[in-house]
Amino acid sequence: MIGVVLVEPEGPANIGMIARTMKNFGFSSLVMVKPNITEESYSYAVHAGDVLDRAIVVESFEEALELFDLTVGTTGKPGKGFIPYRVPIYPWELRETLEGYPGRIGLFFGRESIGLRNDELERLDFTVTVPTSGEYPVMNLAQSVAVILYELTKGKPEAKVRSLEPATRREKEELVGAWERLLEALNYPKDPARREVFAKVFRRFVGRAVLYGREVHTLIGPLRKAAIKLEECRDAER
Amino acid sequence: MIGVVLVEPEGPANIGMIARTMKNFGFSSLVMVKPNITEESYSYAVHAGDVLDRAIVVESFEEALELFDLTVGTTGKPGKGFIPYRVPIYPWELRETLEGYPGRIGLFFGRESIGLRNDELERLDFTVTVPTSGEYPVMNLAQSVAVILYELTKGKPEAKVRSLEPATRREKEELVGAWERLLEALNYPKDPARREVFAKVFRRFVGRAVLYGREVHTLIGPLRKAAIKLEECRDAER
Repeated sequence: MIGVVLVEPEGPANIGMIARTMKNFGFSSLVMVKPNITEESYSYAVHAGDVLDRAIVVESFEEALELFDLTVGTTGKPGKGFIPYRVPIYPWELRETLEGYPGRIGLFFGRESIGLRNDELERLDFTVTVPTSGEYPVMNLAQSVAVILYELTKGKPEAKVRSLEPATRREKEELVGAWERLLEALNYPKDPARREVFAKVFRRFVGRAVLYGREVHTLIGPLRKAAIKLEECRDAER
Repeated sequence: MIGVVLVEPEGPANIGMIARTMKNFGFSSLVMVKPNITEESYSYAVHAGDVLDRAIVVESFEEALELFDLTVGTTGKPGKGFIPYRVPIYPWELRETLEGYPGRIGLFFGRESIGLRNDELERLDFTVTVPTSGEYPVMNLAQSVAVILYELTKGKPEAKVRSLEPATRREKEELVGAWERLLEALNYPKDPARREVFAKVFRRFVGRAVLYGREVHTLIGPLRKAAIKLEECRDAER
């Protein structure tokens, strides 16, 4: 179980947006320390009002800490020097770190104004940071939650469910083969070395396009049909 | 260059949050079609007011389209069935797809209420979607921008040697046109609606493959030649 913990969130709109983002990514456990939650939060939550309704509200950071086995802090200002509790990992490393962990995990996000305080970061197991531009490193709270939950969800099997099957290597080979047969039927380009290049360009085209199986068949059809007709046509000319 | 394009954004706060997110991730090129931009936008942008100041405001989707060589749409509602222009790729696939592309890339985001319309999605090269929970798939606009820019920034490589020119919009249209002419010459598929689908699948194929101008010409040649020969062949049969 992964819970999102907001430590003294100041913006009612942010609270709502975070609830929405949580539901978008399949998270439901929200804990808030002294939140400034208002009707506006519900309006920004849109269809995630239930996340707010079920949220646990506590009076102190200590109480929130008690709810989890493993606690992760987020920081937008990675330490410059060697401050152990401020050397953060990146979100994609967090995903790997948490994978398969069976306990209760709490992701702690600080206040919009000052984030998590040093004495709070010291109490947490480790910190994570979203890599940002040095020119303007501090993200909006709701945005960082979105990025981190997105990254954690990527590894979840349900995110991978797709209605379409990706093209197999064999299907892609068939498509390339259909193109080669078309070049053959056209006897174009005449120079074998150039024809090879034409085939390679097509192969690269197929490789980069991230195709689905059904699409490959839709593309093979006309190429194959054209080659067959051209072959018939050539034979008739003879 | 990667630009963020907001098509008729409705919420002034969202516009500001997006400008801030852009600056967080090192993006500076913002294009907006008929935006509802107010003082509130600047307040939500915090230290990214300069992104709003430098933004290009246009009056139509068409005008925005003209500014880019490669256009990517975002959708929160991936097609359930086989709707060619709605089969999206995931953000991490987008990163791989765009890596090293030297042309002008436009990331199009739709309205908060209805996203991008189908007729708009059809004009874009391909679409990307953030994988979300089936229970509540639709994210807040500013959140999806954050996730996508985060993912693109992760892979920002060193500037690559630009020996090849990216295919222009016109070159890609020519390639799609050559395919359509081939289908025409084959009279395949016979059903016009299906033929339309075959053309759309090819358009998406072209869109996702991130082609260079020279490659496009290598691909157009055989398709055009095949169509011409098939036309001659058909005329001879008469």
